[in-house]
Amino acid sequence: MQNYILKDENSVFYECGYSCDNEIFLKIGDEAYFFTDARYTQDAKDHIKNAQVIESKDLLKSVREILRKNRAKKLFFDPKDFTTFEFEELKKSGIYLAPKPNFSWKKRAIKSEEEIALIKNSVKINNLAFDRYSSYLKNSGIGKSEKFLQYKAKEILSNFGEFDLSFEPIFAINENSAKPHAHPTSKILKEKDLVLFDAGIKYKRYCSDRTRTSFFTQNIDFNFGQKFKTKKIQKVYDLVLKAHDETIKRARSGMLAKDIDKIAREIIDKGGFGDFFIHSTGHGVGLDIHEMPFISPKSSIVIEENMVFTI
Amino acid sequence: MQNYILKDENSVFYECGYSCDNEIFLKIGDEAYFFTDARYTQDAKDHIKNAQVIESKDLLKSVREILRKNRAKKLFFDPKDFTTFEFEELKKSGIYLAPKPNFSWKKRAIKSEEEIALIKNSVKINNLAFDRYSSYLKNSGIGKSEKFLQYKAKEILSNFGEFDLSFEPIFAINENSAKPHAHPTSKILKEKDLVLFDAGIKYKRYCSDRTRTSFFTQNIDFNFGQKFKTKKIQKVYDLVLKAHDETIKRARSGMLAKDIDKIAREIIDKGGFGDFFIHSTGHGVGLDIHEMPFISPKSSIVIEENMVFTI
Repeated sequence: MQNYILKDENSVFYECGYSCDNEIFLKIGDEAYFFTDARYTQDAKDHIKNAQVIESKDLLKSVREILRKNRAKKLFFDPKDFTTFEFEELKKSGIYLAPKPNFSWKKRAIKSEEEIALIKNSVKINNLAFDRYSSYLKNSGIGKSEKFLQYKAKEILSNFGEFDLSFEPIFAINENSAKPHAHPTSKILKEKDLVLFDAGIKYKRYCSDRTRTSFFTQNIDFNFGQKFKTKKIQKVYDLVLKAHDETIKRARSGMLAKDIDKIAREIIDKGGFGDFFIHSTGHGVGLDIHEMPFISPKSSIVIEENMVFTI
Repeated sequence: MQNYILKDENSVFYECGYSCDNEIFLKIGDEAYFFTDARYTQDAKDHIKNAQVIESKDLLKSVREILRKNRAKKLFFDPKDFTTFEFEELKKSGIYLAPKPNFSWKKRAIKSEEEIALIKNSVKINNLAFDRYSSYLKNSGIGKSEKFLQYKAKEILSNFGEFDLSFEPIFAINENSAKPHAHPTSKILKEKDLVLFDAGIKYKRYCSDRTRTSFFTQNIDFNFGQKFKTKKIQKVYDLVLKAHDETIKRARSGMLAKDIDKIAREIIDKGGFGDFFIHSTGHGVGLDIHEMPFISPKSSIVIEENMVFTI
């Protein structure tokens, strides 16, 4: 892929170690260009690697000028990365725009050792935050609303704004915990409630992501092997934990992502709860919180060494 | 405009009183449709006004089915609202897609009495939060970093997660306050620092937006008529305040937005600081924090009764 263009912040950061909220990255042969406006020029020049910073009031016009100067004939782009407006602006250059869906995600699916170290550190800091959050819940959780406890989770996870979060943390009580993307409500936390906590932080832009279901008592923690008050809930939890452990044990490079999904799905099916397994089994994690490889029934990507994904 | 399609959350909310992060709104003649996936169907049905909810695993495919069933020939869309991928998916229906830039913004520029009441309430709550934040700064601000004080601003403005924020609040000290979109740093707040605070909340989705520059002493507040330690800073502040007050006094419906911008710009020019006025004079506020009418040197929109904008 000789010439390509990117706009998505994480995709651009991956190419040149810098991004901002008004930018375009352009690669023409061996040359790389980063277009941005006057607010970010100095910051970009200070932090960018291997790309020339071009300041402009009209980024797409400046891109067209570089394309013409280089007499480029063909440019790859991701059709999910550009709006119809931007596409039309680029087309004015006369260049052939070749759609190539997800090419940045495909590039980023296999992580370098350095990236893996960053993700491990992100996971470590996130785990410590989960511990601090369970301490907070023990001491002060009862009587607080989901909304307040979600806010408190942001404070603890971000360490008062030191870390960005991978996504808005989800803290859900009892029946709300069955909705995978619940918004927090005014529901109040009581002793013996069931709680779902799904949260992650970013360390140097690399995401972590952890989900736990727990029984709220004075011993609450977010470790594996939770104990619940009814046999039915315990049965479902143990089944999900078994599917989780078995899938991790049996996943191998060389497998298709959907065959890894199948391991989990078969265990849940056999346990009698297949109809309730409405979510996919996992997803890649990196600069994006959800990225390739997706571990779902339709995902036919081949799993390779150094791919990082959740189960 | 008989038939149109929207995806942007605020534009969709304006049409039917509901939105979520996976949705399409389609208007065909007198019929309106809201497409979403199983996670949101029930919530959508509970809250939507005057639109039929259609649950789908592939929203664009379901849109095509409705387009075919209705034999629609032409559909308006905003080229900034749809990606190239989505455009190609819609085109498969055989319909003519007519680009109409910013049509939702144009529709929303003139506010109803109800919307104006919501914005006023948003401004009122935001002003109270500014007061609470200045109290916090007086009592505990010294020795804290920009990063921490930005985090604290989020806590106070959102009232621990009760309100969403219009945007990430900006808290900047001394030279950082000259950058209109500064990211918070580790810089520590000291007595007699110059501080910039730019923040707003959302009330029932309607935004407020307030910017103040103050001198940090034990009397800090964010009211007009600030006093500073040097004559030069005081001169600049008083000039900006004069431009602000005069522009509000002289702005009238029937004027072009750029002529309102010119009032402010001429006063700053005459005061000798025209070269430093790199920002526009103001912008519309509503469901979006920045929307039409834009009050800038190039904006030739005619100002009408019940438009709401900042100066």
